[in-house]
Amino acid sequence: MTTPFEYAEQHASRFEEELCDWLRIPSVSADDAHRDDVRRAAVWVAQQFEQLGLQVEQIETPGHPIVLAEWLGAPGAPTALVYGHYDVQPPDPLDLWQTPPFEPTRRDGNIYARGATDDKGQAFTHIKSVEAWLRTENRLPINVRFLIEGEEEIGSEHLFAYIADHRDRLRSDVAVISDTSQFAPGVPAITYGLRGICYYELRLQGPSQDLHSGSFGGAITNPANVLATMLAALVDDHGRIQVPGFYDDVEPPTDEERRQLAALPFDQSAFFSEVGVDGGTGEEGYTTLERRWIRPSYDVNGLWGGYQGQGAKTVLPSKAGAKFSFRLVPRQNPAKITAALRKMLESICPPGIRMQLIDFHGAPGVVVPLDSPFISAAATAIEKGFGRRPVFIREGGSIPVVSVFHEELGLDTLLLGWGQSDDNMHAPNEKFSLADFHRGILASAHLWEELRRLGTSG
Amino acid sequence: MTTPFEYAEQHASRFEEELCDWLRIPSVSADDAHRDDVRRAAVWVAQQFEQLGLQVEQIETPGHPIVLAEWLGAPGAPTALVYGHYDVQPPDPLDLWQTPPFEPTRRDGNIYARGATDDKGQAFTHIKSVEAWLRTENRLPINVRFLIEGEEEIGSEHLFAYIADHRDRLRSDVAVISDTSQFAPGVPAITYGLRGICYYELRLQGPSQDLHSGSFGGAITNPANVLATMLAALVDDHGRIQVPGFYDDVEPPTDEERRQLAALPFDQSAFFSEVGVDGGTGEEGYTTLERRWIRPSYDVNGLWGGYQGQGAKTVLPSKAGAKFSFRLVPRQNPAKITAALRKMLESICPPGIRMQLIDFHGAPGVVVPLDSPFISAAATAIEKGFGRRPVFIREGGSIPVVSVFHEELGLDTLLLGWGQSDDNMHAPNEKFSLADFHRGILASAHLWEELRRLGTSG
Repeated sequence: MTTPFEYAEQHASRFEEELCDWLRIPSVSADDAHRDDVRRAAVWVAQQFEQLGLQVEQIETPGHPIVLAEWLGAPGAPTALVYGHYDVQPPDPLDLWQTPPFEPTRRDGNIYARGATDDKGQAFTHIKSVEAWLRTENRLPINVRFLIEGEEEIGSEHLFAYIADHRDRLRSDVAVISDTSQFAPGVPAITYGLRGICYYELRLQGPSQDLHSGSFGGAITNPANVLATMLAALVDDHGRIQVPGFYDDVEPPTDEERRQLAALPFDQSAFFSEVGVDGGTGEEGYTTLERRWIRPSYDVNGLWGGYQGQGAKTVLPSKAGAKFSFRLVPRQNPAKITAALRKMLESICPPGIRMQLIDFHGAPGVVVPLDSPFISAAATAIEKGFGRRPVFIREGGSIPVVSVFHEELGLDTLLLGWGQSDDNMHAPNEKFSLADFHRGILASAHLWEELRRLGTSG
Repeated sequence: MTTPFEYAEQHASRFEEELCDWLRIPSVSADDAHRDDVRRAAVWVAQQFEQLGLQVEQIETPGHPIVLAEWLGAPGAPTALVYGHYDVQPPDPLDLWQTPPFEPTRRDGNIYARGATDDKGQAFTHIKSVEAWLRTENRLPINVRFLIEGEEEIGSEHLFAYIADHRDRLRSDVAVISDTSQFAPGVPAITYGLRGICYYELRLQGPSQDLHSGSFGGAITNPANVLATMLAALVDDHGRIQVPGFYDDVEPPTDEERRQLAALPFDQSAFFSEVGVDGGTGEEGYTTLERRWIRPSYDVNGLWGGYQGQGAKTVLPSKAGAKFSFRLVPRQNPAKITAALRKMLESICPPGIRMQLIDFHGAPGVVVPLDSPFISAAATAIEKGFGRRPVFIREGGSIPVVSVFHEELGLDTLLLGWGQSDDNMHAPNEKFSLADFHRGILASAHLWEELRRLGTSG
């Protein structure tokens, strides 16, 4: 008799090929030109589930479809809701990719492609672990419900609406997501806290057309100057965000949490040198890990305006704009922050400029209690899959769906990241370690068994 | 006996026809496809000078030729160096022209064509006034040297090199340029001051590639945030530029100059509404005209970084950059300002960012003293030609050739603009008022006489 774990090892190479098939589909959800590709990626994963004999539903939305797939053959056992997403970030800037983003390439033990780690590669580990059980034992130890969406990179609006409308249909015991990172190579981790996010676009309109900066400069308000002033006004010299009331609901870290963070094997100079910088800046009084995980932050994600070509053009631009975002910690309220931000920007918007602030999406931060039995089960599964007990970390990014699972379905989420922090998610040359891919499949296969031991909570 | 002034009136209609011939030649210097046309426009004007009996030289350059034409038959009298250009801006967008750009058309008292005002029509007034003198008096009151180039719209590189190499050859007493505008219809003007410029590109390099703003935000210095901070740091809330020493050499305006500017028939609300804004901002304590003409200014001409596409991308960009410039007033030194700027930006550049400041070009501002005898002579000539005494204005832009005449030849320049601010130079439907064309010829004919009264300065 082959065990599910042996099966996973025997079929490792086919699993990689299948992942490559999925990665070849340029399912860029933010780009209308890729609308059909996004759908192809949904159909592709739905077929995977069908081939395994799961009950599959392709849920149409005004945006991209949601794939719901269930194996509910373990009555009395817990139900895990496994979330993943088949959409990917835009691949720009293309010229920085060593190999094309949608031609998956194996190199140095990694697979390089847009979506390799975020999230096709990681989501696929749970699909393959289910295959390993079903093809060997013809059953799973617990019930598993997959929810694979295509709008994670653009805000998950339709998934969230679907969840809110189908609370009973989706009732489960715990959520499982692999869309984060290990702490370091060889140091698997469970992420028990996430930052939230508020993301905005600010558009400034000055004169109705570009003007000559000689004839008009100094008297006509320049939207590019104002953009710089507004963006700069959002933070002070000590790295403190200046939106009124921004820190009101921020819980100061406990001494115990700060000690735990300080005890992690974090190599700060390696962290900086890996991204090619000689040092960093941030909120005064906090360590680098604290700045990334347990403190809010402010980033300009993009800005534009006026002449961007070669040489000198003496233009006073008619428009300028920026995208920027705040990372939030648990208890900060995105709506409250957006209101305060809007008021602040309007108050400093000078004569001659019309401003528009677009609120893209917001999500509060979340934490899962470290003494949760789900956390223990996952820790054991990871120890069996990776050969090493995980550390417990937080993550600076947001996974809005985690907040939605908590609010709409009352679920805690196990964030079992198989990736690495240098996997270049959202950047050129995104990759995923093939060893981690296979260890992730093993850990997932163990997870179903470990969760069975807990019984049903509901 | 016919006077030169009577001659000009008698031959008005032929002068218009000749101008139309010149305007029909599509001498677009920026477009290689028009290379032969540009040369035809040079040959055309050289023939005009030959027919008048001037000494003509067509100077070949690696680009388009320069036409030098002289009448030096008044020994002991001053020599005026008359500058103009026979090249024109590209006519695009063509579909916005009511009549084709190179088919000159008379309509509503104007002549419509590319080059009508910038600069063929204006330059031609001085050629026709010379004709009026030579065909009636067989002499000019002073010596006149024309320098008509074909690269004004693309930077005048070869003209400037020629001037630097031929200082003695070009020795003159005053320069005359008609390539600007009157203050308003019926309000002729002498432009006695121009602002200078320093133009820069600032490039900031943060991490070696784009990073995820969730995982890294707050701890890795974001070059787009720093760009905003740096650009904002260059100006304070009162519109004062913050480069140390920036105002050291700025001469405060005299009460008399401020009174003169305030007395101009300037309609501020029309000025704002023409460019589609409801108001302006600038240096506190100064009027709109003062901000445009006699005070320095700071404009971001372009900026870029990170994600500029549709939707939300949570990126911490690897690079950001901007083009920006200062307009300078006379006595400010571009090199000194560049050095202080560089020092300031380097001092605020935070850990994790490498900055590069590129200095594109600088030119000091210029003023011709209002009590200069050349200004008085020109004012009298304009009064005689236009029937109204000119106002004295400044211009916020730079005219590089004016700086070159000052630096290389030690010449003050009389900027005698016959155009109107709504003549659409550099835009579709460029035009020139025929009345202003003929008044310009008269004023020019009077100018030679008025300048003779001054005697030689050199």
